[in-house]
Amino acid sequence: GEAPESTDYANYFCTYSFIYHQKDMLEDHKRTGSYFNAVMRNRGAFEGRVVLDVGTGSGILAIFAARAGARKVYAVEATSMAKFARELAIGNKCEDVIEVIQGTIETVTLPEKVDIIISEWMGYFLLRESMLDSVLVARDKFLKPDGALYPSHARMYFSPIESPGASAWQGEYQGAMEGWHSFLHAMSSLYDVDLGCLTNEFNKEQADYYLQTAQWTDVHPAQMLGPPVCFKEYDLLTVTLEELKKPVSAAFTLDVVAGGPVEALAGFFDVEFRGSPTNPADHPVRLSTAPDMAGSTHWGQLSFFIHPPIDCGQGDKLRCRVCITRKQENHRLMNVSLHCDVLDPSDMPTGVPSRDLTFQIE
Amino acid sequence: GEAPESTDYANYFCTYSFIYHQKDMLEDHKRTGSYFNAVMRNRGAFEGRVVLDVGTGSGILAIFAARAGARKVYAVEATSMAKFARELAIGNKCEDVIEVIQGTIETVTLPEKVDIIISEWMGYFLLRESMLDSVLVARDKFLKPDGALYPSHARMYFSPIESPGASAWQGEYQGAMEGWHSFLHAMSSLYDVDLGCLTNEFNKEQADYYLQTAQWTDVHPAQMLGPPVCFKEYDLLTVTLEELKKPVSAAFTLDVVAGGPVEALAGFFDVEFRGSPTNPADHPVRLSTAPDMAGSTHWGQLSFFIHPPIDCGQGDKLRCRVCITRKQENHRLMNVSLHCDVLDPSDMPTGVPSRDLTFQIE
Ligand SMILES: Nc1ncnc2c1ncn2[C@@H]1O[C@H](CSCC[C@H](N)C(=O)O)[C@@H](O)[C@H]1O
Ligand SMILES: Nc1ncnc2c1ncn2[C@@H]1O[C@H](CSCC[C@H](N)C(=O)O)[C@@H](O)[C@H]1O
Repeated sequence: GEAPESTDYANYFCTYSFIYHQKDMLEDHKRTGSYFNAVMRNRGAFEGRVVLDVGTGSGILAIFAARAGARKVYAVEATSMAKFARELAIGNKCEDVIEVIQGTIETVTLPEKVDIIISEWMGYFLLRESMLDSVLVARDKFLKPDGALYPSHARMYFSPIESPGASAWQGEYQGAMEGWHSFLHAMSSLYDVDLGCLTNEFNKEQADYYLQTAQWTDVHPAQMLGPPVCFKEYDLLTVTLEELKKPVSAAFTLDVVAGGPVEALAGFFDVEFRGSPTNPADHPVRLSTAPDMAGSTHWGQLSFFIHPPIDCGQGDKLRCRVCITRKQENHRLMNVSLHCDVLDPSDMPTGVPSRDLTFQIE
Repeated sequence: GEAPESTDYANYFCTYSFIYHQKDMLEDHKRTGSYFNAVMRNRGAFEGRVVLDVGTGSGILAIFAARAGARKVYAVEATSMAKFARELAIGNKCEDVIEVIQGTIETVTLPEKVDIIISEWMGYFLLRESMLDSVLVARDKFLKPDGALYPSHARMYFSPIESPGASAWQGEYQGAMEGWHSFLHAMSSLYDVDLGCLTNEFNKEQADYYLQTAQWTDVHPAQMLGPPVCFKEYDLLTVTLEELKKPVSAAFTLDVVAGGPVEALAGFFDVEFRGSPTNPADHPVRLSTAPDMAGSTHWGQLSFFIHPPIDCGQGDKLRCRVCITRKQENHRLMNVSLHCDVLDPSDMPTGVPSRDLTFQIE
């Protein structure tokens, strides 16, 4: 297969060629353990079969599949990490079964179709990095008609939360604006140059960065002001690449059970390994990235801070619409817009103003 | 002019489109003040002249030139920051004189040749970012035969230093390797997968990152174990683009006056505004990034840590050869190799082993 296009390599692929980055993912044992369980508890689905690992990285999932009895595993990796995956297969005595191919899945050819595609493609808030596109390309090119995808399903969630991060980021933003005004003064007094006409633009730039960029957080369940609500579900066997590339547009209602200022929406996801309709998994497995007392996976949750927070009473609801679109300049990043109406327990407006919020996922 | 090529934009140009980044440079008053002084103290060179500002960013240097009486200033900026430079020229009542052109200097056309090219192109250790290439392209395309470059000269220096950073980075590296061994154990015990065959590669990756990557530091003069030595000089009016693209290869000797373990070489630069041979500056100005009690410019100094340190007695010398080459995958970054022989005050080997060191400038 071919190497990635060079801008995409600079923007996305390059960090995956480092062992420390693969290690960060490998040692997320909630993540790696879910894939291990999904494979090992469903050996029946793998024994004697042909498997494709899309984005093999270190090769770990390919090794799991080989250990579960796969006849053949094609392990495709776009970066030079492929060379290490090859060594790992040898070091773990799976080199008869695992064939590592370096190149993008979009450009490789395989000698046969496969029974199972396994891939760990999820990014922050599920879709960041847009790697699911590549998995669907692989599915459409290589998966047998009644083949299975591991995982088979994915869901996206929001939960209303309180968050100390909200005022921290607000503080950073205010600090940046205060710094700006001192800077204007210095430039005027040292050089007699007036940069005041840039104030609005600088303000916007800093607000985008500090207030409107979704932030990686490890949210504690106690921060949740209401239960998670699923606003999007994917059946990975049937969703089309065309549907995936369209904006994610959904309406959902969050119960703010606890009441209180809603300082952010926490966004997260889960995936499930249910097998396929013709070959359901004996032991389905679910990998969730919801807030967890034991601490988050490496994905954390993405917190979308709301400035100022939304005043809610106990039992109030946020009736929301979300729209997630890919950035024009970099399809691996996203823009998110949210509209929230504030309703009381009997679905009447509370009088708290509706909110239109825009964010970026960087 | 045209926009930058997309990979170069992702790797280099993109941060310059943010006001916060231009602000960081503007509020480096040792930097900005040197350019201000170079222009204002030499108004005679600018009055009634045509000036080109290569990489105008916010437009600050164009405004200085206009204030010094330039008849016309072409201010070329590759990124969307050009729009703000245009606003700043208007806000500072220089729009009659300053014409902002958005595009790379390599692709713009100007209606006339210019008397002066002013540019702030220097990166860490002078050459990081390789923007001098663009200034020389501009010189060859647009500078009148007896025109001047502001600055006109540049020099690169090393100084032997002691540095607490050396053992800090050594500690980080050792921590990473200890973490690796715990990780190997976990992967083996949780999944029965042996990642031992990656140990050497991981070790190399971590050593490259922690020990062999030149680090930004603010070196205090008290850390210098000997005076700075200039190992490379550029006359910016006469150096050719071809010469610039070749490796920088030089021999130099560092006097380790104080003696002691040499824990790093600190690399830095200066530039001078001497005007041109036909029009020398009335008041030459020098901008130095050498270690300074008052604190560094935003360039700091790049510290090249030596593990283990080199044992030197008082008055010993390090006879060095340096070779600086551009990285193949990204010409804006560098590889540096250093060879050091350890000599006593009478130029005899001290018995301390010679060292061959390789570094990257990331
Ligand atoms: N289109 C594509 N073709 C091939 N590899 C891809 C790809 N898109 C992403 N990748 C690779 O997919 C990997 C995703 S990270 C997952 C790594 C490994 N399978 C594990 O579970 O630990 C990265 O190594 C990345 O380089
Ligand atoms: N080849 C090129 N063509 C046009 N602009 C370039 C360029 N290479 C670099 N630049 C721009 O040059 C600037 C260098 S930073 C200096 C900014 C400003 N002149 C100041 O002194 O404060 C950046 O804004 C960068 O985008």
